[in-house]
Amino acid sequence: MPSPAPTHLAGDALVDWLQHAWAHPAPDEAGTQIGARLTQQMRRAILERVVPPAHRLPSTRALARALRIARNTVVPVYEQLRAEGFVVAGQGSGTYVCRIAPDAPPAAAKATEPAEAPRAASPLAFSRRGRRYHSHPLHEFWTRQPFCPGQFDLALFPFRLWNRLQQRQLRRADPIQLEQGEPGGAPELREAIADHVRATRGVHCAPDQVIITDGTGESIDLVARLMCDPGDTVLLEDPGYWAATQVLSDHGLRLRPSPVDAHGLPPPVLRPGERAPRLAYLTPSNQFPTGGAMPLARRLEWLRFAARHGTLLLEDDYDSEYRYEGAPFPSLQGQDAAGRVIYLGTFSKTVYPGIRVAFLVVPQGLQRVFADASADFYRDGDQLVQQVLADFMREGHYAAHVRTLRREYALRREAMLRALAEALPDEFATRRLSVVSGARGVHLTLALPDEIDDRAVAREAIAHGVTAIPLSVYAMRVRWRGLVLSFAATPVARIAPLVDALAPLLRNALAR
Amino acid sequence: MPSPAPTHLAGDALVDWLQHAWAHPAPDEAGTQIGARLTQQMRRAILERVVPPAHRLPSTRALARALRIARNTVVPVYEQLRAEGFVVAGQGSGTYVCRIAPDAPPAAAKATEPAEAPRAASPLAFSRRGRRYHSHPLHEFWTRQPFCPGQFDLALFPFRLWNRLQQRQLRRADPIQLEQGEPGGAPELREAIADHVRATRGVHCAPDQVIITDGTGESIDLVARLMCDPGDTVLLEDPGYWAATQVLSDHGLRLRPSPVDAHGLPPPVLRPGERAPRLAYLTPSNQFPTGGAMPLARRLEWLRFAARHGTLLLEDDYDSEYRYEGAPFPSLQGQDAAGRVIYLGTFSKTVYPGIRVAFLVVPQGLQRVFADASADFYRDGDQLVQQVLADFMREGHYAAHVRTLRREYALRREAMLRALAEALPDEFATRRLSVVSGARGVHLTLALPDEIDDRAVAREAIAHGVTAIPLSVYAMRVRWRGLVLSFAATPVARIAPLVDALAPLLRNALAR
Repeated sequence: MPSPAPTHLAGDALVDWLQHAWAHPAPDEAGTQIGARLTQQMRRAILERVVPPAHRLPSTRALARALRIARNTVVPVYEQLRAEGFVVAGQGSGTYVCRIAPDAPPAAAKATEPAEAPRAASPLAFSRRGRRYHSHPLHEFWTRQPFCPGQFDLALFPFRLWNRLQQRQLRRADPIQLEQGEPGGAPELREAIADHVRATRGVHCAPDQVIITDGTGESIDLVARLMCDPGDTVLLEDPGYWAATQVLSDHGLRLRPSPVDAHGLPPPVLRPGERAPRLAYLTPSNQFPTGGAMPLARRLEWLRFAARHGTLLLEDDYDSEYRYEGAPFPSLQGQDAAGRVIYLGTFSKTVYPGIRVAFLVVPQGLQRVFADASADFYRDGDQLVQQVLADFMREGHYAAHVRTLRREYALRREAMLRALAEALPDEFATRRLSVVSGARGVHLTLALPDEIDDRAVAREAIAHGVTAIPLSVYAMRVRWRGLVLSFAATPVARIAPLVDALAPLLRNALAR
Repeated sequence: MPSPAPTHLAGDALVDWLQHAWAHPAPDEAGTQIGARLTQQMRRAILERVVPPAHRLPSTRALARALRIARNTVVPVYEQLRAEGFVVAGQGSGTYVCRIAPDAPPAAAKATEPAEAPRAASPLAFSRRGRRYHSHPLHEFWTRQPFCPGQFDLALFPFRLWNRLQQRQLRRADPIQLEQGEPGGAPELREAIADHVRATRGVHCAPDQVIITDGTGESIDLVARLMCDPGDTVLLEDPGYWAATQVLSDHGLRLRPSPVDAHGLPPPVLRPGERAPRLAYLTPSNQFPTGGAMPLARRLEWLRFAARHGTLLLEDDYDSEYRYEGAPFPSLQGQDAAGRVIYLGTFSKTVYPGIRVAFLVVPQGLQRVFADASADFYRDGDQLVQQVLADFMREGHYAAHVRTLRREYALRREAMLRALAEALPDEFATRRLSVVSGARGVHLTLALPDEIDDRAVAREAIAHGVTAIPLSVYAMRVRWRGLVLSFAATPVARIAPLVDALAPLLRNALAR
């Protein structure tokens, strides 16, 4: 038979409050252990001033009886509250509530403070660079609909084969994939990548010059941290790859956008006494987003410029696997004898988008520090994925998969070109509309006359179920108008109907 | 029968060179397709000036005969070289070598340039911040030997169970793990983490406030980018977590290290007119590396300070799962009513070191931008791992595993304490040596008298097969001497012999 609550505790505010709380547990207390629940409730009672500072707590025995729980449940609760600073043991046997200053409401506190800039006063406000990031116009247009860049067709990926390779790795007795891995990435993968870029891109490197990262953003981040200081100048392609700009600018570099032409970015002409840029970010194989390719003469000009001025060239070779006419141009890195080029590659456009494996190839002499820094700053990549990708490459599946993709993407590109030509013959004939990107990559870049509001067209397109990124959002100082349409994720048969949804919007814009 | 090389080509330098190159393939040409090989060789011949600019190439037919290969192999090679800018088609039928300016040797070029700072002239030189990173003294001591922090015992991980969960995910028809995933991370995992930190750490959050990252370094990076601008002040614990300092400093923040005491870092006292720091990086549950825990009163002081001054508190709760006496203190975040705290957690110390899953809990209102930025800057984490970890948590395996670890680590900690006490009784009795860290975490922090050179002791220890990190390498302005010894990766039976290897070095250092 339960005993009644002892009378000498009746009227003790804490006990009353606890008895009530005990009888009416909050939803998030369900399933909590009794001791943990009591600790929580007593903390709250003290913070909410159910009992004032210096109030003497009931003895553990008395509280246990009042709540009808075991005394050895209450004893560790008191110990915990003492350790946390909620209560203190008195000189004698008692336990007393600590003097905890009230948490002044922020509004009242602010009134007594000198006026401060609004941003500093509110931690909820983003910083200037945070606002620059999230107010970038690209966010408005980047919607997961057909033709949106960055999307790929998972149906083309040999998922079952990949899974078999994963399962084979998982059957290994040695749980290597649980370890942090070696700085720079799994040696097997670094070797497979070195072989691959040597054979297909003419990159000169030993496996230890290959540094695995999680993505190109991280690769650029690493270069900015190790090779550049705040205030250093970086030359950027304009229009150009937004994420590279963002990373470099976040690292305090002084951005110097420079206009591209049909052959990519020319080296700058320095005024007398002008300091050369520390870094130039280039996409020589397929300028993003305009789609030009840099011819040999300009590549050699860049290498001479770099050798003479100590400028580091960051060659982002992001989708060089996709060339539909002729062989790809060899990499800038492969023609560089002076160790002035850092080469960037990624697998997110050739294996699967979620893979998170990219890499840098750094000049001889830098590899140890890059590997260590990559491990220290970002930790190493997932070891299971690295091992599986190494197998996928070494066993020839990667090369075969890229060939499949290249064939399929060529058909999709062709279908998009044909559908556009059929839907907008007059616009192409009058050159008011033109395709500026070459026979490579996974998107078409359409150029529009300067007076067209490409963002208005893109907004209409999104409302019609098609995502076209306005070229103007990639431009910094130059004026480019047009649309970027990715064909990577859309099967051939679906392309023409989607182009037909887009075409009237373009026709209207051009007729206005 | 092979026909002899036609006589009218004899003496053509290009053909001679190609015939020689053809007969003596370089090792890296083995297995290359004939066309690709010829393209490479002709590029090299032109770059190395085997043939001068304006030299007329032999016809495709003549070259094919000279090299005894099919003419339709040679035709696309010429087309490719034209596209790349190595050769140009003449007015008539001929093909001519382009004028490609010689790549001036860097040394000669430098002589004609005005003198520049050595770093700018050589891209091989690291930047100041790059040098600061790789000259940090921690690198010298961080060796993969027993007692080195950051290492864990893979034998304790339920690898077979984890693998079963992986295999179950891989059997799903929907290859969800190939996708880039939703910004902020897999919803299942965000929900499991929210439930977990609510129950065990008193964190107040909805699942969408949980943002998955690859590691705590990345979490801090994200906060620095979105919430801080270059020149903003950040308050750091001194001594403190090296990687946090590195990330915040790389982002151009002004570091203000402030000495910790046995209860962690106290809030600063601002001079009249002094601007409050934008950010304070705190490890209230287990100050790294000194091992203090922040009592309630100080936590409330911090929250008041933050509410009053708009300072953002970054609470790194990195190994709060490991408490060996009493329940862990609830998180600072859970006591914060004003949305001033960003909470950081990680799984690399509780699941397995290579897992690369960490998270932030951000205040209401920030979650969308944090999720998008995390996806834009770093891409999302591996979806397979996120799904498997969500299952591991939801099915109760995570909580059970943490209990196992806590039990085992308590024994290892006990063994290390006992071995130290037995090996160095006089040093402890005279208080020349003391353990300053509390009953939590996975390392012991030993404090040494100020005059002891802890780096010299650590160097000797490494030579004796034991890694002890000198406390002084974590200190910025303060003077702390001591050693950090991790017990996480060393089974109980191996601890005493390793301590016995270390003890004479400490005894000698203290006797000097």
